[in-house]
Amino acid sequence: MAALAGVSRGTVSKALNGTGRLRPQTRQRVLEAAESLGFQPSPLARGLISGRTYTVGLVTTDSIGRFSAPVLLGAEDALGAGRISVLLCDTRGDAIREQHHLRVLLARRIDGIIVAGHHTGPRPPLPGPLTVPVVYAMDPSEDPRDASVVPDDTAGARAAVRHLIDSGRRRIAHVTGPEQHHAAIVRAASALTVLREAGLPLASGRVHFGEWSEAWGRQALHTLLRAAPDCDAVFCGSDQIARGVADALRDLGRRVPQDVALVGYDNWSVMATACRPPLTTVDMNLGELGRVAALRLMEAIGGRPSTGVRALPCRLVIRESSGPADL
Amino acid sequence: MAALAGVSRGTVSKALNGTGRLRPQTRQRVLEAAESLGFQPSPLARGLISGRTYTVGLVTTDSIGRFSAPVLLGAEDALGAGRISVLLCDTRGDAIREQHHLRVLLARRIDGIIVAGHHTGPRPPLPGPLTVPVVYAMDPSEDPRDASVVPDDTAGARAAVRHLIDSGRRRIAHVTGPEQHHAAIVRAASALTVLREAGLPLASGRVHFGEWSEAWGRQALHTLLRAAPDCDAVFCGSDQIARGVADALRDLGRRVPQDVALVGYDNWSVMATACRPPLTTVDMNLGELGRVAALRLMEAIGGRPSTGVRALPCRLVIRESSGPADL
Repeated sequence: MAALAGVSRGTVSKALNGTGRLRPQTRQRVLEAAESLGFQPSPLARGLISGRTYTVGLVTTDSIGRFSAPVLLGAEDALGAGRISVLLCDTRGDAIREQHHLRVLLARRIDGIIVAGHHTGPRPPLPGPLTVPVVYAMDPSEDPRDASVVPDDTAGARAAVRHLIDSGRRRIAHVTGPEQHHAAIVRAASALTVLREAGLPLASGRVHFGEWSEAWGRQALHTLLRAAPDCDAVFCGSDQIARGVADALRDLGRRVPQDVALVGYDNWSVMATACRPPLTTVDMNLGELGRVAALRLMEAIGGRPSTGVRALPCRLVIRESSGPADL
Repeated sequence: MAALAGVSRGTVSKALNGTGRLRPQTRQRVLEAAESLGFQPSPLARGLISGRTYTVGLVTTDSIGRFSAPVLLGAEDALGAGRISVLLCDTRGDAIREQHHLRVLLARRIDGIIVAGHHTGPRPPLPGPLTVPVVYAMDPSEDPRDASVVPDDTAGARAAVRHLIDSGRRRIAHVTGPEQHHAAIVRAASALTVLREAGLPLASGRVHFGEWSEAWGRQALHTLLRAAPDCDAVFCGSDQIARGVADALRDLGRRVPQDVALVGYDNWSVMATACRPPLTTVDMNLGELGRVAALRLMEAIGGRPSTGVRALPCRLVIRESSGPADL
């Protein structure tokens, strides 16, 4: 190739790797020669020259469940579909396993790490000293100097409750997951704020904290209707809970949305579309979240690190479960 | 370290990498010196010496959904939780994207590839010539000389229908996915064989092929009850379909399992446990499938390749939906 372009081998290397000082014409000549030969520099060869491995570690904590899978795919897309490869490590939520994976990743001289969680609650940073940039996706680092990307759950819950108020609901209840879970706490606090701003009470007088399950949705609906039989809407902290609430309402002969409107959270397609009727819900845009995390990581690898938590907008997906009340 | 052990650098390398001919005492001395220095050979250094990268490519086709995620985790476990690293590539079912990922993986000098599908139907082999071993998991290669690991769906469906017959059911129907899907065809054929062996008819006279969805389960149940109002059991090709059938039976006031017994397929926990009543179902042991695929790949990398399709047993998980009939 050097012969074809009429330059030295060192010049070829500089041209193909975008390093060193070359005249634009020279670089162009080398690239054309490379192309005419069908030459693609191997990642290993590139790595030996640049000191980079074009490999990123993706550490997940939830056995690649429905929260980390879309984050992972979004990140993979942003990393150029193979231009930068993804080394996958799942920690199954175990700190020892996480440390082991971290050692292996660093020994492999990866260029950076994305840590993808599934709780949305703050987590301890990876144990240092780290020699590569890290971006935390979904579960932010407790250290504000780290770079984190999270869904804006406060705005997501706000959009859900505003939508119910705007469609004429006045006796809105909230059923959600465990009282200690960050996602449940943030969404509940936001729902209460919106109701207070609108001068509306919380139906049944309290947030129904419980589990992220359909069974809890069914059970909570009965409890809440005993305290607030005139409840005309339920905002649920997850689609699974909303599905349970929908089934319990159906059993009681209450119509959704005419008698009680329903909004879920997650836009988990198998739940939201199989629900009767299909569920209005909040989508956390997890693919976009993974993409932004990967872009922040690449900026840091490129020498432009950033710090702090970046909250990305959620999106309200309107389906039949939240139509107007039957007045 | 060489100084500490009193040997040459070449000897250190041989000892740490388990290569060359060394006296056991010498190897021991080096290993002790290495340990006292907290030395761990880097994977890159190991790779330069052994010609291996201790990296395996995992190519998935379903956007890392609920079928490939457990396969992937099982494989990761078997690969020694980080001793061999996993480079993840998702093809989103696109052949061009698959070829691109394949080129990148080969350029990275991976030691082998696992291709994890989600249909269970045969797929074309990766385009050759391939320089590394490949094992196909879930979707077998069309080439019988390749190594594939699949769930034994014939035995899985057999266990489901035998269980219904053994608990006294005599008018068993079958509702499943699309007529062109390999998984639907194999399970239906096996169900028909078992019924024929038992001298029982198929309730409603035909297999109800449709979609892998709850909505289809609900719809099919109504159709099938019109043709066979005395049907006393439904074997479903997926848990989602079974869930739809359960909800439709509930709407009609038919009791599960007293009036109609129900068996699903997949043991997809969120579906099977939220179903009312909880669902008896067939578990394809996908984690074990991933583990076996990884072990076969490691054997091939170690110079002991095998060929052909290996079918792994499924497991019937019995819950309330298939209790005895109310006679």
